[in-house]
Amino acid sequence: MITRAQQRDAQERAAALMDAARVRLAPGEHQAIAVADFGLGRLEVEGAQILTIVETDRIAAKVIALLGGQTLPEHWHPPVGDDPGKEETLRVIRGPLYLYTPGPDTLAQGAIPPGKEACYTVRHEQVLDAGDTVTLPPGLPHWFQAGPEGAVLYSFSTTARDILDGFTDPDIVRQTVIAE
Amino acid sequence: MITRAQQRDAQERAAALMDAARVRLAPGEHQAIAVADFGLGRLEVEGAQILTIVETDRIAAKVIALLGGQTLPEHWHPPVGDDPGKEETLRVIRGPLYLYTPGPDTLAQGAIPPGKEACYTVRHEQVLDAGDTVTLPPGLPHWFQAGPEGAVLYSFSTTARDILDGFTDPDIVRQTVIAE
Repeated sequence: MITRAQQRDAQERAAALMDAARVRLAPGEHQAIAVADFGLGRLEVEGAQILTIVETDRIAAKVIALLGGQTLPEHWHPPVGDDPGKEETLRVIRGPLYLYTPGPDTLAQGAIPPGKEACYTVRHEQVLDAGDTVTLPPGLPHWFQAGPEGAVLYSFSTTARDILDGFTDPDIVRQTVIAE
Repeated sequence: MITRAQQRDAQERAAALMDAARVRLAPGEHQAIAVADFGLGRLEVEGAQILTIVETDRIAAKVIALLGGQTLPEHWHPPVGDDPGKEETLRVIRGPLYLYTPGPDTLAQGAIPPGKEACYTVRHEQVLDAGDTVTLPPGLPHWFQAGPEGAVLYSFSTTARDILDGFTDPDIVRQTVIAE
């Protein structure tokens, strides 16, 4: 749960990061930035700010802004009916962005969020900078974290069903509750 | 057909437009910009420069740069087997971009390429600027043209099969031939 004031503050900081990265938002899009705390209630540590550019039953394009050191928790995109699961391409506009996927543990630049050792199981690190592109196949566990100055990236994908994503952390609730 | 020198010149001008729009290309991506003259041999009038960020059998993301006044010819994305055809979302980073789709003829800011009245049949004009987003359903005829200073846009879509696109102009050949 986050408060309305926290939501507004995170929106403004995310919009400032997107503006600095020259993402070129349309009028009113600042207010459309979704703030996700994943039900953990510590947005600055684990959370994300997400602007959906388009979402249809076939594709999705989003801009994700992470505050300095903020972590988007470990998750994967499972099959849904006939759909083999979301295939996602990350394209970094402002880095560094630390991306973690399965493979040898090479975690060095980023850090596991305090107290969450068990919830971040894949630790093969890639340090991504502006222009870097990575495609993640459906089902692949991944998480990412912004460098100290924040990060901005595009996510291009097949249709997104965020609510059906799998998360390693059992405490995660994908829908953010805003306290009035 | 275009010459290698024309190709290189168009790549450099497109890269300069993308850089000015802060698209943030990775090292080496400048050289990966495809130059398409649609077989018409007058690239400055009818043509496009296209950087493919990702292309899988499910989605595609591209950056398109148009030189000042350059027109991407009228075309549509037909069904292919079980696929209902490419669904495409345009997201403008640098405008103005004049987009034409079916509807009342409101063509005012742009212009039909000289001598090609019969090949540009849809003339309902939308003037798009930075941050503007339009989603085109499969099969919808469309064409677009840059304003005098050039334009840069993202194209987010389902899988692209450019070679199977339909074009109104019977002289168009989608694959560009480079003369050595």
